[in-house]
Formats: sequence, C-alpha cells, structure tokens
Amino acid sequence: MLFQEDTAMYEYSHGGNAIFEKAARDVIDLSASINPLGMSEGVREAIIHAIHFCEHYPDNFSKKLRGKIAEFEGVNSDNIFCGNGASDIIFRLPKAMKAKKLLIAAPTFQDYERSAASCGMAVSRHLLSPDNGFSLDNGFIRSIKNEKPDLVFICNPNNPTGRLTERGLIEEALECCSDINARMVVDECFLNFAEQEDKYTGKVYLAQYSNLIVLKAFTKLFALPGIRLGYALCTDEEFLQDLYFHGADWPVSALAQAAGIAALNGTETYIKKTVDYISMERSIMEKKLAQLGYKVFESRANYVFLQNPYPFDLKKELDKQAIRIRSCDNFPGLDGSYYRIAVSKKEHNAKLLSAIETITEEKADERA
Amino acid sequence: MLFQEDTAMYEYSHGGNAIFEKAARDVIDLSASINPLGMSEGVREAIIHAIHFCEHYPDNFSKKLRGKIAEFEGVNSDNIFCGNGASDIIFRLPKAMKAKKLLIAAPTFQDYERSAASCGMAVSRHLLSPDNGFSLDNGFIRSIKNEKPDLVFICNPNNPTGRLTERGLIEEALECCSDINARMVVDECFLNFAEQEDKYTGKVYLAQYSNLIVLKAFTKLFALPGIRLGYALCTDEEFLQDLYFHGADWPVSALAQAAGIAALNGTETYIKKTVDYISMERSIMEKKLAQLGYKVFESRANYVFLQNPYPFDLKKELDKQAIRIRSCDNFPGLDGSYYRIAVSKKEHNAKLLSAIETITEEKADERA
Repeated sequence: MLFQEDTAMYEYSHGGNAIFEKAARDVIDLSASINPLGMSEGVREAIIHAIHFCEHYPDNFSKKLRGKIAEFEGVNSDNIFCGNGASDIIFRLPKAMKAKKLLIAAPTFQDYERSAASCGMAVSRHLLSPDNGFSLDNGFIRSIKNEKPDLVFICNPNNPTGRLTERGLIEEALECCSDINARMVVDECFLNFAEQEDKYTGKVYLAQYSNLIVLKAFTKLFALPGIRLGYALCTDEEFLQDLYFHGADWPVSALAQAAGIAALNGTETYIKKTVDYISMERSIMEKKLAQLGYKVFESRANYVFLQNPYPFDLKKELDKQAIRIRSCDNFPGLDGSYYRIAVSKKEHNAKLLSAIETITEEKADERA
Repeated sequence: MLFQEDTAMYEYSHGGNAIFEKAARDVIDLSASINPLGMSEGVREAIIHAIHFCEHYPDNFSKKLRGKIAEFEGVNSDNIFCGNGASDIIFRLPKAMKAKKLLIAAPTFQDYERSAASCGMAVSRHLLSPDNGFSLDNGFIRSIKNEKPDLVFICNPNNPTGRLTERGLIEEALECCSDINARMVVDECFLNFAEQEDKYTGKVYLAQYSNLIVLKAFTKLFALPGIRLGYALCTDEEFLQDLYFHGADWPVSALAQAAGIAALNGTETYIKKTVDYISMERSIMEKKLAQLGYKVFESRANYVFLQNPYPFDLKKELDKQAIRIRSCDNFPGLDGSYYRIAVSKKEHNAKLLSAIETITEEKADERA
C-alpha cells in the first residue's frame, strides 16, 4: 500500500491534553502513557540547580548527558545523539539521509509518516492484521524486499498496540535493510516498561549493523514529557554528525540536559519498580476489560490496547465522566472502535474500570 | 555569487563556549552576545513553579505564551509561532516552503545557509562591502531581482556587523519579494538592543505583506540562551500551520513556556535599562578601540564589530589572557581580521579594553 502526501494539512493528533482543559483538576487523563511513578525528586532539584546556567548557551553536543546515557545503555557516548524529544530526531532523520521512501508497519506512531511527508518522501504501509493481534511477522520482511525503502521504522513495543517484536525478526529485518542500503530505526521509547527488556532490545545489533538507529526518550519512562528529551543510538558516527547538520543547533536546553542526567541516577530500582507496577496493573485492567466483553490485545507497554465490540463510542461515554482515553480512529490501519488507555495510578485505573463497567452495563440495558 | 553545498560537513561555529572550559570561572566570555543585565528573578521563580508541569506534555501551540508575546509585540496571537529557539524556526522555514533558492546578504548569521543546504536549496550570497561599513543598500534589491530567490533573509541589525537596515529598504525588498512570490524573513533577534527600535522594526509591514516573517528570540534580549525559545511573526496563518507540520511537535518545553511568559512581565523598564546601558558601554568600547587604531564599524546591537589592522591575531592574544571574543574568520564575506565582541558587564568590558591596550602596545614595541 503506497501513500504519498504532498501538501498534508497539519493536525495535532496526540493524547495528553487534559491539563489544558478548564476543569483539568477533575479530569483523569489516560490518553497519554506516562510512567505513573512520576518525576523523581532528584530531577526537580537538578532543574532548580541548573536555572542559572540558562544565561549561557547549552552544550550543543550534550556531552555530560551523553556520558550518563552511555553508562545507562551500555554503549559508547560517541554513538549517541540527543534531541529535543525523540520527535526532533524523527524529523532530522530523513533529511540527514536524503531518504526517498519510508516503510512502516501500520498502525504505528504517526509522526514517522509526517516526518517523511515533510521531506516529500513516499510512504509505504505494511498493514498489520487484527487476526494475529497486530503482531509483526515475516510478511514485513517480504514488504522490505518488495518495496525497497531506504528508511524503515519498527516501533517496539508498538504504539498504539503494545505488541513486542521478537529479536529474531528485528535481526532479519536489519539484514534485509543492509542488503538494500536502507537504514532501520527501532523505536524503543516504550521498551523499558516491558519485562525482560534486555531480551528484546535491538541494542545488541548496534555494533554489527551501522544502519541501525535505536530511538529512546525520557518522556515516558521518566515521566518527563514537558522537558523534551530523546536520544538516538547508532554506531555510524558520520551519520550522527549529519543529524547535527540537518537541524537547529542547541536542540537540548540546559534544563533538559540537567534533568536527564539526574533522571539517570538510581535507575535500576526505579525501572524495576516501574515494570513490576505496570505489569501488575495492566494485567488487572486487561482481565477486567476482557470480562466486560472488550477485545483486549496483548500489550507489553504501559498502556492497554482494545477493541470495542459494542455499538457505542467508549471514548465519548468516558469523556462525559471526565476520563480521557485515546481513540485510535486517526491511526492508519485502525478505526474508531480501537482505543489505547494508559496504565496510570491505581485509583485512576480503578475509576476507569468502574466507569467502563457502568457504561457497558447501561448500554447493554438500553439495547435489551 | 552562487553557492551549492550538497553534503556539507557539520562544524559547530558559534561563540559562547567558555562555560564548558575547565577553568570556566576565570574566563571572560565575550564571544556570545547575551544581555549583561541577565535573567530576571521572575523567570527563575516561574521555572521552579513550572517543574511539576513537566509530567505532562507541553502545550504544542504555546497558547498562553503566544498571548503574552502578542501583547508585547502588539500583534495578533494567531500570527505567532513559537519554536525551540529562533534556530528551530530557521530550519522549519525552507521545508515548510519547499523553497529552492535562498538569498542572503553576506556576512550574516550562518545558520540561514546551513538550513538551506540541509534542504538542498541553492544559496546566493549578495556580498556586503567594508567600503560602506557593510551596510545593506539598493544593490540588494537588484540582487533580489536578478537572483529570483524564493526565500530572502535580512538580519536587522546584522550579525556580526551590528549594522541596521533602514525601513525604506526593508519595504522595497518586501515589495520586490512579493512580485516574485518570495518570502522574506527579517531576523530581529538583536533589534531590541537598538535605540528607537520602533523606527526600524519590520513589524509594521506584517499586515500588508503576508510574505513577511519577523523572527525574534528570548535568547539575547532576556539572557535566556539555555532555555531555547524563539518566535516568528507572520500574518499568513496557513503558513504558520505548515511550520507545525514541518517539524517535531512540542517544540517548546513546559519550562521554556513558563520562562517566556515570566520574561515578558515588566519589559518596558528592563528594555529601557538595557538599551541605555548597551548604548553607553558600546560607545565607550568603540571609542577606545578606535583610539587604539582598530577599524570600528557602527554597530547598533549589543556587540562591537571591528577589523584589526595589525599583523597579529587579536583573538589568540586575548585567549592567552582568558578573554574569549568571536573571530569572524568563518563568516563568508569576512576573514580572520574581523572580530565580534559582546558588550558585557562593566568590569568585563574594562578588562577587555585594558587587555587590548596592553597587547596592542606590546605588539607595537615588538615591531619597532
């Protein structure tokens, strides 16, 4: 399936906007998936400490921060590029490559397509199927071979489905991309929420495949979306230079650099606590939703992904109760019957489930 | 003069890096031109207050901030786009326009060219002449007519020369650009440092010329380079939507939005104090430098611009005394005999002048 958009209109299409609503305090926002454990006190202190540095330009190359990320990720700091959120990097990539054709597996994060469209690239969508729970399989390798893209994105776990892709398939795709001189991005912005993350990360292929870019962000894992901080891992250092060239200087503010460094202190405990919590709460949510008749897909991220089999708009009904979830109607490959719901704080998740239960029963009564 | 760079190598080429030196505390950095009055206490407090918002995505459209800027600039808030520094906007512009050819008056801020090169645009340089103090004159209008660019940048006052361009010429250039369907950017990032700023700003043409983009930043005027915050004024609202489309979402962090709003409180006093101070100190510096035999050009920005007539490298000599100035050797149209020096705090300026005096006399003795 080929898609080309020359003059697409801009439409903001992300979740997480409840904070700008008038009665924001009374709204439960599960439309963006941010670590419910929240920002650490260390990050707060680091930001305050860094304020006086704002009278100077930030380090264009985020050297100290890259040093910390290098330790955290177990990679060389020369193999890291830090940007104004992972999105900044998504927009630099095709320009830096002068790429002509993107291949994605749809549904997935929409900004891959927008960034490509913005560079006049052709976009080819490999459609995932609900029949195997939207999981990526060998068909994607065939799509790479057939479509011959020069840029491929795999989101792992995928947004909005939460599905993990096995490492074997990642390697096969990488090999295939190497053969046709394509770069492959594995977006792991949600991977740290998955159990046994180290069994899935594409990082192990960085040394072998210089065409691999692993994308990560502080946004979700460290609950810092307001800071804007993401990074790319890649062993092609010349290409990282190109990322600098093909975007504005000073991508990462002095405050974001300080926040990032602080966030990476004591990550082991924080991440273990996060994974345990998400895993437990997601399982409670998934079980309950399945009981209520919703088709629940197996997510390994910090959100649940479901399809509503009933003839009503679940999002609209929850909106009335000041609970916001993410409708997937604007994800190519999905429609308005699919929803992504963040795994949030216990009391929020409980309120959500109780609201859905009530709505589902009331709607059933109406139909009866 | 036409220039085309297909695979330019990235090289960081800005001033303001002394803070990353080992003995940063003992270094006087006059290589970046930041308001010596510094960041206000209100900005500091606003950042601290905004930290807890970082657990949410920032407002993609910086609505509150745009409201404040609208008041400050006397424009409609729908005519404002906020970016991750003015640089972010400089890099979005050619993509949003699908521009093919850039015209600049050289020497000027280098990122206009890099952003154009990054989009594969041709770059045409109208060379300014030291003979009239590098001022922009009618020759530039002829260059627009001859070169037929679709994107034109005028930096006013110009970086690194500090020269102001008369409003009449701005209007003529705008009219000329309208005729050939080109957009014109007037970069006024340093204009608030000039006396009678309102007699020079291109803002008065915004209503009449929808092809005009006025570029401004918090970086220099409010001493907030570490925050990353700039904005564009333009009455073509569809084009502003294109700026959103052709770059990452959430360009301005939650902290930068809060800082910007706070910086715009009580600007009248702050700016008057700034202009008076800069004007007085710049005049002292220019007089002394001229006395010492340096060719001083008339700057109206918060930096002085000079040519060294002597056979030694002034920057290298000052480096030895831990004073950093900006060599202009990498500005197309200039060479290593030109320097840009920030107007800084009184004690720094005094140390600079005394150091230059000593160096100049010693070097004269050596030659004698």
